[in-house]
Amino acid sequence: MTGTLPDLTTEPSHFAADSRHWHPFTPYSDEVHLKVFTADVARNETAVMLRAEAGAQLGVHDHFGRVLAYTLRGRWSYAEHDWVSGPGDFVYEVANSQHTLVADPAEDIEMFIYVEGPIHFLGADGEIVGIETARTFADRYLRFCLDNGYPAPELNPY
Amino acid sequence: MTGTLPDLTTEPSHFAADSRHWHPFTPYSDEVHLKVFTADVARNETAVMLRAEAGAQLGVHDHFGRVLAYTLRGRWSYAEHDWVSGPGDFVYEVANSQHTLVADPAEDIEMFIYVEGPIHFLGADGEIVGIETARTFADRYLRFCLDNGYPAPELNPY
Amino acid sequence: MTGTLPDLTTEPSHFAADSRHWHPFTPYSDEVHLKVFTADVARNETAVMLRAEAGAQLGVHDHFGRVLAYTLRGRWSYAEHDWVSGPGDFVYEVANSQHTLVADPAEDIEMFIYVEGPIHFLGADGEIVGIETARTFADRYLRFCLDNGYPAPELNPY
Amino acid sequence: MTGTLPDLTTEPSHFAADSRHWHPFTPYSDEVHLKVFTADVARNETAVMLRAEAGAQLGVHDHFGRVLAYTLRGRWSYAEHDWVSGPGDFVYEVANSQHTLVADPAEDIEMFIYVEGPIHFLGADGEIVGIETARTFADRYLRFCLDNGYPAPELNPY
Repeated sequence: MTGTLPDLTTEPSHFAADSRHWHPFTPYSDEVHLKVFTADVARNETAVMLRAEAGAQLGVHDHFGRVLAYTLRGRWSYAEHDWVSGPGDFVYEVANSQHTLVADPAEDIEMFIYVEGPIHFLGADGEIVGIETARTFADRYLRFCLDNGYPAPELNPY
Repeated sequence: MTGTLPDLTTEPSHFAADSRHWHPFTPYSDEVHLKVFTADVARNETAVMLRAEAGAQLGVHDHFGRVLAYTLRGRWSYAEHDWVSGPGDFVYEVANSQHTLVADPAEDIEMFIYVEGPIHFLGADGEIVGIETARTFADRYLRFCLDNGYPAPELNPY
Repeated sequence: MTGTLPDLTTEPSHFAADSRHWHPFTPYSDEVHLKVFTADVARNETAVMLRAEAGAQLGVHDHFGRVLAYTLRGRWSYAEHDWVSGPGDFVYEVANSQHTLVADPAEDIEMFIYVEGPIHFLGADGEIVGIETARTFADRYLRFCLDNGYPAPELNPY
Repeated sequence: MTGTLPDLTTEPSHFAADSRHWHPFTPYSDEVHLKVFTADVARNETAVMLRAEAGAQLGVHDHFGRVLAYTLRGRWSYAEHDWVSGPGDFVYEVANSQHTLVADPAEDIEMFIYVEGPIHFLGADGEIVGIETARTFADRYLRFCLDNGYPAPELNPY
């Protein structure tokens, strides 16, 4: 038999901390910043760092997928739940839950999060004021890079 | 050492075709019926049969996750794409895509679908008229069972 | 601001039933045939049709991920469990389970399956005799196409 | 209509850093320790901290699913690849890849990892010397708790 099979080999991707830029989580908050590592728009999955200033709040949001959150520094909670997450803690969030992020006033917070599915941000009457997806996370960051003269990063993890 | 480990054994779950009831896909269409096998509300994943009458349409919807669709009978297409799916075909849908289901007028259609993430149904001006999740699929079917005196099915797959 | 964002638009992929070829599930059985729609080697996920002759068995296998199985025709069971799956039934299999497929002697079976993670095939003493992954499913089918002069199909779903 | 629907409400789970114990990654290494947050044995997914002593190596392993790895301190690499991961970096690993973890000799390393699918540890001739799954991660930690008189933790995330 002649001919060869296509090579299907894959390998891990490394994203250095300084290969991404912090950018504001517009239009939701000036006090919350993001650093997007990867955004898989076909699966709706995003690997992203989140930083919020001490005391910042991020409006009520409604999850339609899981969020895996590992806290690096500071303490934060959800107004709707009675636990507080600090450095080294892990929070496993599920679809079908709704809450309001509150950063403790004592210190800025930073966490690594893996977001699956969209997040709806809600207004005072429960109306949808914004829908975040891997696509919007990617577009916001790509726009930021374009506006600042940075080269467009490769965000699709594979 | 005394004491025993918790038993973590798992096993497959079997859902017989006649263990589920067809019910209308309210409020979207009287011509489209569903049969829900499983609904994982924490992950937002639903295994469901979909039947539509010949010629039926299901309004524009916006995907926020993947849909795996295997066609059993009839032919259907998306108004926005140029292929037609018939019996034995597989359609792999991704997040971040938007389309209108059209059943061929010659024959009723039936398919097995695995839905990940929510689906937004859109109105004439692109406004959201409904959001479907594993939770809404489950609630609709559980309500149907309750209204018809059927016992509540176990929908969580594990 | 000048410049444009990369276009991140995605769309569904359609795989016609006759765009794929049945091929034997070597080396496990001459009586079991596959038709691979998609194989995502980075995620280890495969969408595949499986046909087995009436009375065929597929040796003990050990699951390391989920399998979603929708039966089209014939009846089959796992020697280790007490249910029988027939046309229209759905089976939700989980990681961490081990079993032997047995096709009912009355009729050939056919099912659509979505396989996540690897499957280990085991010998008489529980030893591993084969490991199936999206990569091996892809390689087997690509080899079959090469050997028969068919063009190499695109198997990566996105 | 009388009767009520089952309540399908879900909510996030918080796992405090000090609610889990470090334990050795037996039998692979005395220099590598784990702290398991969650283990979903049906999906084969594990959220776990990994610590390795400066200069430690973890034998060749073969991935059958993705691993999401966020580095907290120290520097590490894979002998087979040419990048080095340091604090704040993210590594996205895919199925179908094989490599050897090497901790930089200057400093202990620590990372948060989310492991999907099994990992095979390989011997000098490529033979399988161990298979790690959510089940083995759970069993190892539950055994450690039992042996040390700690109560058995709840590891299933939902």
